[in-house]
Amino acid sequence: MEPDAAPLEVVVLAAGKGTRMKSRTPKVLHRLAGRPLLAHVLARAARLGARAVWVVTGHEAGAVEAALPALVPGLAVRPVRQQPQLGTGHAVQQAMPHVGDDAVVLVLSGDVPLTEDATLRALLAARADAGPDALALLTVTLAEPTGYGRVLRAADGTIRAIVEEKDATDAQRALKEVYSGILAAPARRLRGWLARLSNANAQGEYYLTDVVAYAVADGVPVVAHRLDDALQVAGVNSPAQLAALERAYQRRLAEALLAQGVRLADPGRLDVRGELVCGQDVEIDVGCVFEGRVELGDGVRVGAHCVIADARIEAGAEILPFTHIDGAGGAVVVGTQARVGPFARLRPGAVLGPEVHVGNFVEVKNSTLAAGAKANHLAYLGDATVGARVNYGAGSITANYDGARKHRTVIGDDVHVGSNCVLVAPVTLGAGGTIGAGSVVTKDTPPGALTVARAKAVTVAGWRRPSKEAAPPGGEPPAGG
Amino acid sequence: MEPDAAPLEVVVLAAGKGTRMKSRTPKVLHRLAGRPLLAHVLARAARLGARAVWVVTGHEAGAVEAALPALVPGLAVRPVRQQPQLGTGHAVQQAMPHVGDDAVVLVLSGDVPLTEDATLRALLAARADAGPDALALLTVTLAEPTGYGRVLRAADGTIRAIVEEKDATDAQRALKEVYSGILAAPARRLRGWLARLSNANAQGEYYLTDVVAYAVADGVPVVAHRLDDALQVAGVNSPAQLAALERAYQRRLAEALLAQGVRLADPGRLDVRGELVCGQDVEIDVGCVFEGRVELGDGVRVGAHCVIADARIEAGAEILPFTHIDGAGGAVVVGTQARVGPFARLRPGAVLGPEVHVGNFVEVKNSTLAAGAKANHLAYLGDATVGARVNYGAGSITANYDGARKHRTVIGDDVHVGSNCVLVAPVTLGAGGTIGAGSVVTKDTPPGALTVARAKAVTVAGWRRPSKEAAPPGGEPPAGG
Amino acid sequence: MEPDAAPLEVVVLAAGKGTRMKSRTPKVLHRLAGRPLLAHVLARAARLGARAVWVVTGHEAGAVEAALPALVPGLAVRPVRQQPQLGTGHAVQQAMPHVGDDAVVLVLSGDVPLTEDATLRALLAARADAGPDALALLTVTLAEPTGYGRVLRAADGTIRAIVEEKDATDAQRALKEVYSGILAAPARRLRGWLARLSNANAQGEYYLTDVVAYAVADGVPVVAHRLDDALQVAGVNSPAQLAALERAYQRRLAEALLAQGVRLADPGRLDVRGELVCGQDVEIDVGCVFEGRVELGDGVRVGAHCVIADARIEAGAEILPFTHIDGAGGAVVVGTQARVGPFARLRPGAVLGPEVHVGNFVEVKNSTLAAGAKANHLAYLGDATVGARVNYGAGSITANYDGARKHRTVIGDDVHVGSNCVLVAPVTLGAGGTIGAGSVVTKDTPPGALTVARAKAVTVAGWRRPSKEAAPPGGEPPAGG
Repeated sequence: MEPDAAPLEVVVLAAGKGTRMKSRTPKVLHRLAGRPLLAHVLARAARLGARAVWVVTGHEAGAVEAALPALVPGLAVRPVRQQPQLGTGHAVQQAMPHVGDDAVVLVLSGDVPLTEDATLRALLAARADAGPDALALLTVTLAEPTGYGRVLRAADGTIRAIVEEKDATDAQRALKEVYSGILAAPARRLRGWLARLSNANAQGEYYLTDVVAYAVADGVPVVAHRLDDALQVAGVNSPAQLAALERAYQRRLAEALLAQGVRLADPGRLDVRGELVCGQDVEIDVGCVFEGRVELGDGVRVGAHCVIADARIEAGAEILPFTHIDGAGGAVVVGTQARVGPFARLRPGAVLGPEVHVGNFVEVKNSTLAAGAKANHLAYLGDATVGARVNYGAGSITANYDGARKHRTVIGDDVHVGSNCVLVAPVTLGAGGTIGAGSVVTKDTPPGALTVARAKAVTVAGWRRPSKEAAPPGGEPPAGG
Repeated sequence: MEPDAAPLEVVVLAAGKGTRMKSRTPKVLHRLAGRPLLAHVLARAARLGARAVWVVTGHEAGAVEAALPALVPGLAVRPVRQQPQLGTGHAVQQAMPHVGDDAVVLVLSGDVPLTEDATLRALLAARADAGPDALALLTVTLAEPTGYGRVLRAADGTIRAIVEEKDATDAQRALKEVYSGILAAPARRLRGWLARLSNANAQGEYYLTDVVAYAVADGVPVVAHRLDDALQVAGVNSPAQLAALERAYQRRLAEALLAQGVRLADPGRLDVRGELVCGQDVEIDVGCVFEGRVELGDGVRVGAHCVIADARIEAGAEILPFTHIDGAGGAVVVGTQARVGPFARLRPGAVLGPEVHVGNFVEVKNSTLAAGAKANHLAYLGDATVGARVNYGAGSITANYDGARKHRTVIGDDVHVGSNCVLVAPVTLGAGGTIGAGSVVTKDTPPGALTVARAKAVTVAGWRRPSKEAAPPGGEPPAGG
Repeated sequence: MEPDAAPLEVVVLAAGKGTRMKSRTPKVLHRLAGRPLLAHVLARAARLGARAVWVVTGHEAGAVEAALPALVPGLAVRPVRQQPQLGTGHAVQQAMPHVGDDAVVLVLSGDVPLTEDATLRALLAARADAGPDALALLTVTLAEPTGYGRVLRAADGTIRAIVEEKDATDAQRALKEVYSGILAAPARRLRGWLARLSNANAQGEYYLTDVVAYAVADGVPVVAHRLDDALQVAGVNSPAQLAALERAYQRRLAEALLAQGVRLADPGRLDVRGELVCGQDVEIDVGCVFEGRVELGDGVRVGAHCVIADARIEAGAEILPFTHIDGAGGAVVVGTQARVGPFARLRPGAVLGPEVHVGNFVEVKNSTLAAGAKANHLAYLGDATVGARVNYGAGSITANYDGARKHRTVIGDDVHVGSNCVLVAPVTLGAGGTIGAGSVVTKDTPPGALTVARAKAVTVAGWRRPSKEAAPPGGEPPAGG
């Protein structure tokens, strides 16, 4: 089998109602592995090299059409409105005026997210092998075929027709080979077959599946690419089906990671919603969630219960449990041999150099930490440039927001910032300086010096702490002694 | 079938020993989905409209009786002591002197938590249909019936007796229909049958199941409501069985939520211990635990690994991962479009208005935040009234406790509290004011003004930081310059 | 059956390549339940009382040999290099010159971690029962035996030989009883059989399994201890197999805990990597991970999503969700009735007395807290000795590091430390004293007194906060008024 020479156009059926989803969101926009179902289908069309992609919309057409452009950036995808919805054949009819006569048309369903590229390539190749006019069906053998159109074959195995379940005889219903909803045909033949559709059937609809009988009648070869993997053709009609497909998807993805050499503490407790790229000897503990594009370098270890989105974790870095990294809108970088967590949060634009430590209850946003810098405890770094080997004390805060604008804090190499300091931006701390604990720094500090802003301690010997028996309101004397 | 006209009284058997639980807690007080097993059973009795509920206690009777009143608030439930424990028939005998002669008696087991209300209603209706004197049994067909009493039926299908496994012949042991431990009978007939019980059997006990043969002998109709769902009649005798029932319960609950339209990232990783009420388009990520009564409004999204108890999350609010909400003792409210987490903790009495943001490492207790207020980083708000649009700085604390009493902090609308401030309650910050970073505020501040309590920064140019080579003890110069 | 009188020596095969692991770490050093596969095997040899343990190394021999001494502290284990690797028989040959003539040799595989001690004891006893010269094989019946050597038995059931799959006939391949890779034989007989091995077979290797036929030929009794538990003889050749064994191990361990009376919210979401010792009425919620040696006393409750390593949690203590305890390098102790979490982190050397509370966003390292001390919110305690009933305020920090050395903070009984304080170590706070909020304490404070270091608040009435329309750079006036 070899690739089809004819250009490919894809028609995606996305007009269905989705009542059982019980949602205001159109069914094809519900998310599997973090992406709308329709995005999975469109991305597949893009990877197959489709010249054009037509999405047939109907129910909640406005919402679907509004979402289309962003689903697969760079893909030329155009909506075709089906109004009213008179069946799957009618749906494809709406797209056909736009399809070039030289094209092979591949019909996909917008709510069937997990068909593999290789399956569709095999379907297209089988069609091409059967001749330029041939019709190819993707079929699947199901132990429990209820609800699907059955494939009728002659004694010699050649396909004769597809019969919808509601129109099938008992004998036909016993057949296990069903039509998946996916077919491929040359545009110029498909156009003719669609024009002959009738709605004289149990549901009063124009069935796409009737084109099979017309093709047979025309003496055109009808072939099938036959699967036994029901997951690849499973559609989503309810939250339960969506959850089942989600788990099946995640399980397959976990198996693929294991096969690459990634060590997963529990393949059943991993969620990847996007792309997870792993180097050698990566270890991922239980309960982790990855979103967007995440790269884990050689030897990276991710502890239990981490949530990581859009980040690059470089070789040898360690992410301790309960770490939350969100680089959506400004990818996060964790440098080689760095250590982050537990209970750390890295937000967009956090860029940590090699051997940086970000510890518990520390938040970093839009800040660069150079090699060996440390913020180990209870701290906030926002809009800061932090030099090499800086020690940023427990409880210290960059006050980067004046109520109107964000300002930048620059901390030179080797600075030590004491505990519970506030650095009021814009401010620059000169290299090698020390900031005394509890200082509020509002002006630049010179390099190499100690800067401290601190009231003198006063002891009040006779003072009595409020007691539960007879406490005055308020337990503190006035400030300033 | 229609409801029984006779008043219902329920007898719950709760005298068993529970040795395999290996616990100091009586078996029927072990928790499934956060509630004692016995509470599940009593709540069911209450929903069936029982006129009276009698709980037969025996082993660890004191502990069970002490717990009874609080199990189902408002339900009239009274203990009946069985001492010694001479069998299930003997147990029911203890309750009968208290039961009205006009009642239908429903016998339940205190360690069988998952019988559905509809099942018991069907049992009672089947009994009523069979005539005022009839005895009705709940039976279940088990692939593996070992350990249960078998239901003996005549050739025409009429029930003749129940035989306990230890007294059964091999042929009887091969039967798959077993008695569930649940039956219903009119009090005046049951009283008589119980009086005829003998303990001449393999275990030397008075079996409740022997009443079946007496009813048959008396010519009273004996009917069965027959299930094939073993879970509904499964008892708890060990931690392993308890864990298995817990998972089965959670799985069914997840399926019910999915059917309502709730989107669950993983139905196998959801725990609901109490009541979870969801609006439309609610999304719940992996690893979440809900306790008590939790309401999630339309479009609410709950991130991974959240623990939420006794809270109302209003429409459009977003709960980010690792959020801990505990409203037990003062329900928590999260307003519309609010955003909470990650790593946030809301404690009893935290009431957040619309569009409030509570961010990472922030704790809120017994405080009201008006619309649009923000506490985004590393902060504590306790016993505070926070106005609209307040910006509460990173690291700021309400010092609400003077060692004896809690005092209140009032922050007016539009106040900005700088970073690392302490507000020593009782204190009021006037609307529109600004508190400079690092200030300790012990007196009320005027509206619209800047208030700052801060030492002047001093720089010591010649100061040398302790080095690893030759460090003096203590790294800081004295305070106050 | 009774124990063998002959001394036991164990030969562990650990020379294999592990290509499918796709790792730089040798296969036998990959971890299951937190310990290298080889450590599981060696610990078993130790528990069997082996006089000597020989580890045959080959691929990545250097790394394996370097790791050996630390795998099972106190066990005398010595490497024997197999270079090149010419088969399993050749591997055992390398060890034999070191084995005493009086020994029984038990051959184990370094990548088969889950054989139970009782199984090996039964194998050794079966061998001893069969006479001093006997050879005993551990065999297992597999539904799917592909890949394993098959056990050939005569019509009377006596074992005749083992045939490797690649050398087997179709009829032999249909046999379901396979050799596990584990056998026991007297050293002086085994030596002879090994000397007769030939590599004239499909793989051109010296098979250990050929000794069976030699034993039969010599008239020596060959017996089998036959399992039907495939898990006990399952080897690890890929990350997928490792993950599958990990889950099976964890499931069995959870079942054992349940049987002891531990209540697990979800046996499928527990990970124990080391030793978890539980008292009575222990409850463990979902998603918890235990590492190293952890003891949970009577009535301890561990909330959802906790990670706990090397700690002793005493009776009645409660660990709230999202708590991270790491006592590796200095075991953590949590006293009776103490309460820790949520979002607490206890690091090495944290020792909490009875009824201590450590709350959210609090980190404790190398510190002792006496009975009833509380650090409830956003705080850091490092290198501190904290007296009884101390109240350590929100946001307070021990500044224990001067950039070169760690120093100690001593807080006397009944001290109240206000919010956002910094205690600059070395420093001692006298018993019963109070430290005012926001104070930086650099000198010892007297007992019973109030000490406060705080600037006076100044209000600037005319000051205008930067606005989004026209903001000057920097939002704060200079410090010090």
